[in-house]
Amino acid sequence: MTPLNDTLLRALRREETPYTPIWLMRQAGRYLPEYNRTRSRAGSFLALAQSPSLAAEVTLQPLERFPLDAAILFSDILTVPDAMGLGLYFVEGEGPRFRHPVRDETAVQSLRSPDPDRELRYVTDAVREIRKALQGRVPLIGFAGSPFTLACYMVEGGASSDFATLKRMLYMREDLMHRLLSVTARAVTDYLNAQIAAGAQVIMIFDTWGGTLSAADYNVFSLAYMQQILAGLQADGDGVRVPTIVFTKGGGAWLEAIARCGTDAVGLDWTVDIGRARSQIGGQAALQGNLDPLLLLTDPATIQVHADRILATYGHGPGHIFNLGHGILPTTPPENVAALVDTVHDRSRAFHAAPA
Amino acid sequence: MTPLNDTLLRALRREETPYTPIWLMRQAGRYLPEYNRTRSRAGSFLALAQSPSLAAEVTLQPLERFPLDAAILFSDILTVPDAMGLGLYFVEGEGPRFRHPVRDETAVQSLRSPDPDRELRYVTDAVREIRKALQGRVPLIGFAGSPFTLACYMVEGGASSDFATLKRMLYMREDLMHRLLSVTARAVTDYLNAQIAAGAQVIMIFDTWGGTLSAADYNVFSLAYMQQILAGLQADGDGVRVPTIVFTKGGGAWLEAIARCGTDAVGLDWTVDIGRARSQIGGQAALQGNLDPLLLLTDPATIQVHADRILATYGHGPGHIFNLGHGILPTTPPENVAALVDTVHDRSRAFHAAPA
Repeated sequence: MTPLNDTLLRALRREETPYTPIWLMRQAGRYLPEYNRTRSRAGSFLALAQSPSLAAEVTLQPLERFPLDAAILFSDILTVPDAMGLGLYFVEGEGPRFRHPVRDETAVQSLRSPDPDRELRYVTDAVREIRKALQGRVPLIGFAGSPFTLACYMVEGGASSDFATLKRMLYMREDLMHRLLSVTARAVTDYLNAQIAAGAQVIMIFDTWGGTLSAADYNVFSLAYMQQILAGLQADGDGVRVPTIVFTKGGGAWLEAIARCGTDAVGLDWTVDIGRARSQIGGQAALQGNLDPLLLLTDPATIQVHADRILATYGHGPGHIFNLGHGILPTTPPENVAALVDTVHDRSRAFHAAPA
Repeated sequence: MTPLNDTLLRALRREETPYTPIWLMRQAGRYLPEYNRTRSRAGSFLALAQSPSLAAEVTLQPLERFPLDAAILFSDILTVPDAMGLGLYFVEGEGPRFRHPVRDETAVQSLRSPDPDRELRYVTDAVREIRKALQGRVPLIGFAGSPFTLACYMVEGGASSDFATLKRMLYMREDLMHRLLSVTARAVTDYLNAQIAAGAQVIMIFDTWGGTLSAADYNVFSLAYMQQILAGLQADGDGVRVPTIVFTKGGGAWLEAIARCGTDAVGLDWTVDIGRARSQIGGQAALQGNLDPLLLLTDPATIQVHADRILATYGHGPGHIFNLGHGILPTTPPENVAALVDTVHDRSRAFHAAPA
C-alpha cells in the first residue's frame, strides 16, 4: 500500500517529486528529551530495543516534531549477532559488547543463522506496530548492518579503534572470515526478509566499517556480501520489489563499484561531493546524503547555507534523498533539526520545478 | 650533496631506479626496544623530541636494523603550535594536550608565527646532528603537520573523536578559522625552510585530519594552505629545489586535486587502489604508500602476499615509494618490518627491469 507521502519512494525510483525528501540517520535518539524519557522507562537501551511497543513509540517521536518524509525502525544493527548467540550487552558510556566473541575456528564453525520469526520476533513485532501507528503517513525503513560491519563487532567483541583482531583473521585466515561473512549474510538476508514481510517498505544496509578496508578487500569482504543480500531480498506482500539503500561510510572513492551492487540508492558520507557523485553514478542510483552531522550543532542560518549548498551541488531533477552524512549527534538541539527539515522542504522546490 | 643511496630522491622525480625505495611512517618508534630504552633515558616523549642528540639517536635506530631508503626526522607535528605559545604537554596513555587552546577571537588574534631558529632551534639542531650521523647514506626527510591538522589540535586542545569545537568555529566563524590557518601556514613554512636550511633533503606534510572535511571544505581549509606552504619553500644550500610529499589520510577521493597542489608526491592511505591512483595522477606526481599497517601484525608470508599485490597493482616503471598507509603500530614485531623491507627490495626489481 502506497503511503500518503510517497516522496521518498519516488525519489528512490528517481521519479520526479515536488521537493527533496528528507529523513535523518538516528532521527529517533538521544537528542530528543522524549526519547530519553522512554528509554528511562524501559530501563536500558537493550530493553527499549527489545520492546515492540516502546520501539514503536520512539520510532514515531521525531515524526511528531518534524515533517520528516520517512520513519526508520528503531533498533540496533547488533540484534543479528545477538540472535546468533553472541550475547549482546551494553556497558554504560562504552558502547556494545559481546559475551562470546567469534575469534577461532570452533566459534566460526558453530555459528548458525537464526530464525528471525523466533529469535528476532521482537523486531518484526515492532515493524508491525510501527506500520499500524504510522497509518500510511510516510514509508517505514527497515535496516541491518552489513555482514562486514557486523563481523567487526563479532570478532572484536565490541567497538575498536583499528579492528586489529578482525584484520588479523581477515589477512591470515581468509577462509574463516569468508565462512563468518557467509553465515552472517544469510542471517541478515533472512532478517531483512522478515522485516519486509512484517511491513518494512524500504531496506537500508549500514556498512559503517567497510571504509577501513583496502579497495580490493572492500569488494571481496564487504561489497560482495551486500550484493548477495540484495539479490536475496523478497518482494513485499503485494509482490512489489522493496527499494534499497546501501551506505558505506568512508566509501567515497568506490562509488562506481557500490552503484553496481544492485542497490536503488547509495548513501554518501559528508566528505563526498554530491555533484561529483551524481555525475559518476547518478544514472544508476539515487543518492542519499550528505550534510555533516556537526552542522546541526551550529545555528539555523549556518545550517541553511550548507543545506542550500548540497541542494545546489546535486542540482535540478530527481534522485536525491536529503540526509546527514552519518548519524545525528546526541548533543544536537532539536530546533536545529526543525530548521534543517524546513529548509530542505522549502528551498528544494526550486530544484524540482518543471523546466521552463 | 646527493646521498649514496639516492633511490628515494630519484623515485620522487619519477626517474628510473633499480628497485622501489621504502621507508615507513613512524619508523623510529615504540615498536623498537632500543627506542623505548632511549625514551626511558630521556624521561618523557617531549624530552626526547626536544633533545637534538637523543632525537638524532632514535632517528638512526631503524636504519641500523633495516636497509631503509630514507631517514625521517624524529619529532612531533605539535612542536609548531607549542612554539606558538600553546603549551604542549602529554598525558600518559591519552595523547597530546595544549595548556592554552585557541578557541576565541582574542586567542586567534594574539597568535604569532615563531622564529624557528630560536623557538624551534632544538629541531634544526637535530636535523644537523642527524645529517652528520647519516654521513650521506640515505636522504633525510623533514616534516610538519598541515595547518588544518594542527588547527584541529589547537582548537580542541588535544585529540578528539569528531573535532566538534573546531568544526563549530569553521562553520560559524570562517574568518577566524582562516586567520588561524594563515598564521599557522606562515609558521609551518618558516619551520620547514629552517629544516631545509639545516639539511632536510625531502619535505613531507602530514594532513592527518583533512579527510574529516567535506570535499569543498577540504579544498578551502586544508589543501589551499598546503599549496601556500609548498609555494613558499626555499631551495637547499646548493640552490636545489627540495622534493615534497603531501599525505592526506582519508583523501582517496580527492587525489586529482591533491596532485595539482604543487607536490612532487602524493601519500596514499591503505584504502586507496594504487593502480587506480596511478592512472588518475601518476602523470603528475609520484605515489607513496600504501600497505595497511595492521598487516605488519601478521607474519612474513602474509606480508609478502600483500606487498607483492601493491607492487603489481602499481605496475612497471618509476614513481613509486613504498610505505605504509599510516604510521607503524607500537605492537609491530620488528622482524615483520625486516621481512617487509626485504620483500619490497627483492620483489620490486622485476618491476624496474629494462623492458625486453
